[in-house]
Amino acid sequence: MSKGAVSCALNGRPGVSEATRTRILRIASDLGWAPSSAARALSDGRAGAIGLIIDRPAMVLGVETFFMRFIAGIQEELADADTALMLQSVDETSPELATYRRWYAERRVDGVLVVDLVRDDPRVGALTVMGLPAVAVGGPEGTGGLPCVWSDDGGCMRLAVRHLAGLGHRRIGRVAGPENLVHTGVRTEALAGAAHEHGLPPPVVVHTDYTGERGAQATRDLLAGPEPPTALVYDNDLMAVAGLSAAQELGVAVPDHLSIVAWDDSPLCQAVRPALTAIRRDLSEHGRLAASLLLDAVAGGESRRVPAPPGELVARTSTAPPRN
Amino acid sequence: MSKGAVSCALNGRPGVSEATRTRILRIASDLGWAPSSAARALSDGRAGAIGLIIDRPAMVLGVETFFMRFIAGIQEELADADTALMLQSVDETSPELATYRRWYAERRVDGVLVVDLVRDDPRVGALTVMGLPAVAVGGPEGTGGLPCVWSDDGGCMRLAVRHLAGLGHRRIGRVAGPENLVHTGVRTEALAGAAHEHGLPPPVVVHTDYTGERGAQATRDLLAGPEPPTALVYDNDLMAVAGLSAAQELGVAVPDHLSIVAWDDSPLCQAVRPALTAIRRDLSEHGRLAASLLLDAVAGGESRRVPAPPGELVARTSTAPPRN
Repeated sequence: MSKGAVSCALNGRPGVSEATRTRILRIASDLGWAPSSAARALSDGRAGAIGLIIDRPAMVLGVETFFMRFIAGIQEELADADTALMLQSVDETSPELATYRRWYAERRVDGVLVVDLVRDDPRVGALTVMGLPAVAVGGPEGTGGLPCVWSDDGGCMRLAVRHLAGLGHRRIGRVAGPENLVHTGVRTEALAGAAHEHGLPPPVVVHTDYTGERGAQATRDLLAGPEPPTALVYDNDLMAVAGLSAAQELGVAVPDHLSIVAWDDSPLCQAVRPALTAIRRDLSEHGRLAASLLLDAVAGGESRRVPAPPGELVARTSTAPPRN
Repeated sequence: MSKGAVSCALNGRPGVSEATRTRILRIASDLGWAPSSAARALSDGRAGAIGLIIDRPAMVLGVETFFMRFIAGIQEELADADTALMLQSVDETSPELATYRRWYAERRVDGVLVVDLVRDDPRVGALTVMGLPAVAVGGPEGTGGLPCVWSDDGGCMRLAVRHLAGLGHRRIGRVAGPENLVHTGVRTEALAGAAHEHGLPPPVVVHTDYTGERGAQATRDLLAGPEPPTALVYDNDLMAVAGLSAAQELGVAVPDHLSIVAWDDSPLCQAVRPALTAIRRDLSEHGRLAASLLLDAVAGGESRRVPAPPGELVARTSTAPPRN
């Protein structure tokens, strides 16, 4: 067997048949030679993986296209760096911290991405003390000294309000995500501020858990009042689609009597009728940036704090001047 | 410092403050003591992770709720086994095999789940020769001697045809997934067989890439013929929603002049109007089973080949007797 064949086999390169490769790997293994991530981690201290914990119930995850697009971007960046993604879903914050601690103690990951920041997030302090490299996906406020990449939720919300005010809407409502998430609060503040700037009355905001059921219910609640809003902004696309159906069932024509703006322009927004006006963000680039910042932090580079690419409003047929 | 505090700190259990834990971990590390997955992998030969490679473009992944629900089920099973999921997305089959080889050589994973089986899938043979424990998600045909867990795609398709034939439909069409996927072929065969059994003419099948755009185009193509189908079965839910919109734009009323059956009953099917009749499968349980089989295989248990829980048809308002 040639030295070249052995090298190809051991390094996972093409140039030898599968059977030959397997034979070489078996012989190497019999000789006690282990080119394992285990050995590599002991020698250079790297695990070759980064961690991402997602704290959402399984069913919500299944409909949240956000994470799959975000993860696709992460993968893109990691592929070049020969690094894997360790993914874990948990249901509360406490097991999340325990998992970070275990990953750190067992050197399973070189760093972690922290998502869905809440106010006074306990993870920021705990990770800083622990010394496990981490990047906060969110901020920049409330992320301590962690590197972070944030989306301009406030700017996106102002785009939505400017679009609706420009069409002549005065009563804007919002079907929002969970109140404890930082970015929900940022959007709420921007909505109030932008409405005020445009001389509109304070918008009514209903908080939900991002599910279609709660989105539909919030829509019905908002439309049931004596002076219902003529335009609704939704914090995700599934709720916008469910809200569209709820409005149509109530006989409220979209866009004639209700305009709808969805958040995050997934293919879903173009699949329904009327097609939904939506806030579009490059979620894949957002994930790529987050992974890039983390790889820098793991390599001991300086802590970068950067904005994700700005969002834009894509106008479709679900928004029009109010006819009420 | 008490022995108890040190033990709590090193084993990641509560009972010591974050600062104390960190001090203890630093001292342990300075003494060269590394309770790492690296050391563990060298001692018991386990990596403590399983791998999953998904071979779909980022945008398709972002709208495929299948994978997030499947992954949620995997996580559920892995959490109990203190095992992590290593997730990687690739774009072709060749890098997928190279990644398996690298993972195997570097002992990064203890086994892998193989999804989206194609005909004469090269991964089945390669993994068998390599000796890396693997579970095929699909089959049972074409999975060699690998443990496998398959969904009853044929049975689900027969449920759809029986439902439509029972309503009086005779001309059924299908907007299908990629032709090279094994489970697409299983559905095609079952559709033809069931139509024949019910005395219906052979259904027309159009293959797509699972995107909403292609789903809408296929719908328009199918409805453009001289004798268009009165019922369409879609291979995923996004295409069903896009097809519903396309039909409505053509002035084809659903369900009066076209009945629609979606595949995989995500919350999307209930968010649109009319709500979509759909094939429902327990994808989370499917993922849990796949992970369980793989953990068994890693532990050297016998190779299990089991069906996933049977699917069911959930009738909603998108299907009705044809009025043509």
